[in-house]
Amino acid sequence: MLVVLSGPSGAGKGTICRELLSQLPEIRYSVSVTTRSPRAGEKDGVDYYFVSRKEFEEMVARGAFLEWAQVYDHFYGTPREKVEEYLASGYDVLLEIDTQGASQVKERFPAGVFIFVCPPSLQELAVRIAGRGTESPEDMEIRLRWAENELKDVSSYDYVVVNDVVKDAVEKIKSILTAEKCRCARVMQER
Amino acid sequence: MLVVLSGPSGAGKGTICRELLSQLPEIRYSVSVTTRSPRAGEKDGVDYYFVSRKEFEEMVARGAFLEWAQVYDHFYGTPREKVEEYLASGYDVLLEIDTQGASQVKERFPAGVFIFVCPPSLQELAVRIAGRGTESPEDMEIRLRWAENELKDVSSYDYVVVNDVVKDAVEKIKSILTAEKCRCARVMQER
Repeated sequence: MLVVLSGPSGAGKGTICRELLSQLPEIRYSVSVTTRSPRAGEKDGVDYYFVSRKEFEEMVARGAFLEWAQVYDHFYGTPREKVEEYLASGYDVLLEIDTQGASQVKERFPAGVFIFVCPPSLQELAVRIAGRGTESPEDMEIRLRWAENELKDVSSYDYVVVNDVVKDAVEKIKSILTAEKCRCARVMQER
Repeated sequence: MLVVLSGPSGAGKGTICRELLSQLPEIRYSVSVTTRSPRAGEKDGVDYYFVSRKEFEEMVARGAFLEWAQVYDHFYGTPREKVEEYLASGYDVLLEIDTQGASQVKERFPAGVFIFVCPPSLQELAVRIAGRGTESPEDMEIRLRWAENELKDVSSYDYVVVNDVVKDAVEKIKSILTAEKCRCARVMQER
């Protein structure tokens, strides 16, 4: 099962993903490729594969991405091979991607589970992004505008999870995965 | 939210319903009306409203049922008023009805959550029905035929839950209810 998590930056997707990965042994995380610089503490190959713009463009050219997108001035992409490998081995795969990327993935994997993680409010979002302290005021402004824009795409997702308390949000997502495995369409397909 | 539970007799729907009701304070059970005789321990107004065939027909005539169905030689129906009252008060309502009834309910409540509870196998079902000791061999034969017939209708349900271990089945259904409350269509509708 392919599980796609989207939501504005600052909604807490990263923390949620880490929790899901530590609690669910049957799930694998697809590490994205990006041209943005690592934030403090981020590790190449763990949080992202950090590549140059030129390397990214080469990967696009040779069809190495399941989806890719430009988010303000940076590029992000999901390497196709690893995802297909995990799925073929029977794992669930977790993608944390933006709404542009999600709509590309939905075309290829319509049976994927698409979950949108919301911050409790845009105000709360601003506080969180500011609290992270890794953004300049200009970057923050851009992120907030982007967040507002991303929120418009909620309706193309299957589920919305408001990340008020991380623990609750994680429990809701775990329930969604359990429920999806009982979905009639999925159960019948497997027989 | 209207929650419909169906499945062949002997699949364990009764036990599951009792567990759900004791664990979820926001859910109400709709007591069905039936023309069959009470089994040992069943109480009028709790397990069913036990009525005569004539009374049942009068209720049908005055449109008192949300759905009703004939299952072998007995009639079963869901009194409409109570369900609508609970839903209007913001409760979830749990209906345990057969597949004929479920398809009637689906026409009126397309946003309902339709869950099919399966026994692990038909063989297991026979053991369970026999173990209950309340059926004659003829009744049991009829019930098993009916079960086989009911299993064909699984595909019109949203979810299938195999009742292998009651505790697990109950947890799965609770996850389904949590997930459904995060469904984008439902969340957007409420706003």
